[in-house]
Amino acid sequence: MDWTSDIAAAAERIRDHVQVTPVLQTKGFDLDRPIELKLEHMQHTGSFKARGAFNTLLSCDVPEAGIVAASGGNHGAAVAYAASKLGHRARIYVPEMAGPAKISLIRDTGADLQVVPGAYANALELAQAYEQETGAMQVHAYDAPGTVAGQGTCFAEWQDQGLEADTVVIAVGGGGLIAGALAWFNGAKKIVAVEPDTSCALNAALAAGAPIDVEVSGVAANALGAKRIGSICYDLAQARGVTSVTVPDEAITRAQHALWRERRILTEPAGATALAALMSGAYQPAPGERVAVLVCGGNIAPDPLQPQG
Amino acid sequence: MDWTSDIAAAAERIRDHVQVTPVLQTKGFDLDRPIELKLEHMQHTGSFKARGAFNTLLSCDVPEAGIVAASGGNHGAAVAYAASKLGHRARIYVPEMAGPAKISLIRDTGADLQVVPGAYANALELAQAYEQETGAMQVHAYDAPGTVAGQGTCFAEWQDQGLEADTVVIAVGGGGLIAGALAWFNGAKKIVAVEPDTSCALNAALAAGAPIDVEVSGVAANALGAKRIGSICYDLAQARGVTSVTVPDEAITRAQHALWRERRILTEPAGATALAALMSGAYQPAPGERVAVLVCGGNIAPDPLQPQG
Repeated sequence: MDWTSDIAAAAERIRDHVQVTPVLQTKGFDLDRPIELKLEHMQHTGSFKARGAFNTLLSCDVPEAGIVAASGGNHGAAVAYAASKLGHRARIYVPEMAGPAKISLIRDTGADLQVVPGAYANALELAQAYEQETGAMQVHAYDAPGTVAGQGTCFAEWQDQGLEADTVVIAVGGGGLIAGALAWFNGAKKIVAVEPDTSCALNAALAAGAPIDVEVSGVAANALGAKRIGSICYDLAQARGVTSVTVPDEAITRAQHALWRERRILTEPAGATALAALMSGAYQPAPGERVAVLVCGGNIAPDPLQPQG
Repeated sequence: MDWTSDIAAAAERIRDHVQVTPVLQTKGFDLDRPIELKLEHMQHTGSFKARGAFNTLLSCDVPEAGIVAASGGNHGAAVAYAASKLGHRARIYVPEMAGPAKISLIRDTGADLQVVPGAYANALELAQAYEQETGAMQVHAYDAPGTVAGQGTCFAEWQDQGLEADTVVIAVGGGGLIAGALAWFNGAKKIVAVEPDTSCALNAALAAGAPIDVEVSGVAANALGAKRIGSICYDLAQARGVTSVTVPDEAITRAQHALWRERRILTEPAGATALAALMSGAYQPAPGERVAVLVCGGNIAPDPLQPQG
């Protein structure tokens, strides 16, 4: 697999469909050094997932039966949005835990939305059954080469924007985004993987020596709550090396509040999880180490402009 | 007055104290062309006001009695923040209409906060009385050269970031920010001034041939609700030319929702007022005209992470 050329091709393919997201250098968050933030939560549908969705849909002949995806919410929204923009039918399975903001986001695209009890794994089973029955094309949320190459364009873009850091800190759910980073940087940057203590499929896999099932819960579970790390991510992490840390929910919430209070960046908990590793000291950079942090998702619930109750 | 060198000097003076705010090119908002946004609501204390505050405090010998300011909220927060960072006492008068988010922001800096009944003009009267009594230094929210030069640094910075637009669209309250734009660009860009229908001191002054008092109300009044346009702004608008438009509250709210829904940029109503002029057609650019929009303030109430009630 030649990831560099696959990601470059993906970037070219999706160029007219995705948002180039801004970057900023900033001091604060009680850190001892400035950090560079990439505001990927400003991507279409509020997360990096639009990159993988467009790359997949634009790489294949989509069958008459259309697209099917299972998602904690952000991937489903991205696939539904991309399908709508490209004129395909889409059926999206989401677990109830996706929450009302993400569910509305998917419904608004006109997709055929199925809200199912349980967690992401339950939605995935149903999506796989639908794929078998109808011949619809499955777009996997993280463990497919087209998805990983699409997410990798985020880092190719950041490099074009002059990324100077030695180290890039990234939140991990199923591993599609960090796989894209490992694939693109290929050892040129240190990659720090951050997971919630209560949802740490990569951390557990690295400890066990193979992907294993974990329990998932906590404030970021509807975005980072994959039961098992993707095999593409796991293999890249083994081959290219990753620093894996975990953070408690309290640190995630504290980082989320700090992003809003200090910089008026409003994210969902997952979007603040990478920063939480620095603020909590779960990852402690060396003196002089330049650090960049990806802000990956903004689909907070409740919607701040549609207060509930 | 040599505004170009004053603004360049201000930029140098405040460099270590302010945030360089990000810019992005984006399509959407049902517009017929891409626009360039500058996310100045990510400035310290959530608005451009920190620039003028730091410039003023760093230009003068601050007396023992400290600093006094009156503010609809954002200026007060900026002055209180700058005073706190630079080790000065600050007394800040805000009208009740500033709202709980802005009032908390000021209180959190440790400033001596006075919440007064009525609107901005009432707070200003009390601030002037305090200045007379104590010898504290008044930092005017918009009608002082140091304030205008500070706000002008926002546009010098934007130009350094590669601003390509022909036209820059800016919300107007008392006129400090747009005065900074007129001062910096000096005719090199077309400047569009956007005010709420219900709070349009510049529009009224241009129609009357002189600054006059107006009534202020509406969704953006706690940021844009100046009763009378600043004389520096008025004189620059006369000398250098400005296109003045007004928008209804409904258009402001619609733009505020669109910024969040499409780009996960959460602002207060004032922060979406410039975009509202484009979305509503109050300002209609010519074919081929490249347009930039300043997002000036993010201090939304209620605080989205501290839901009330």
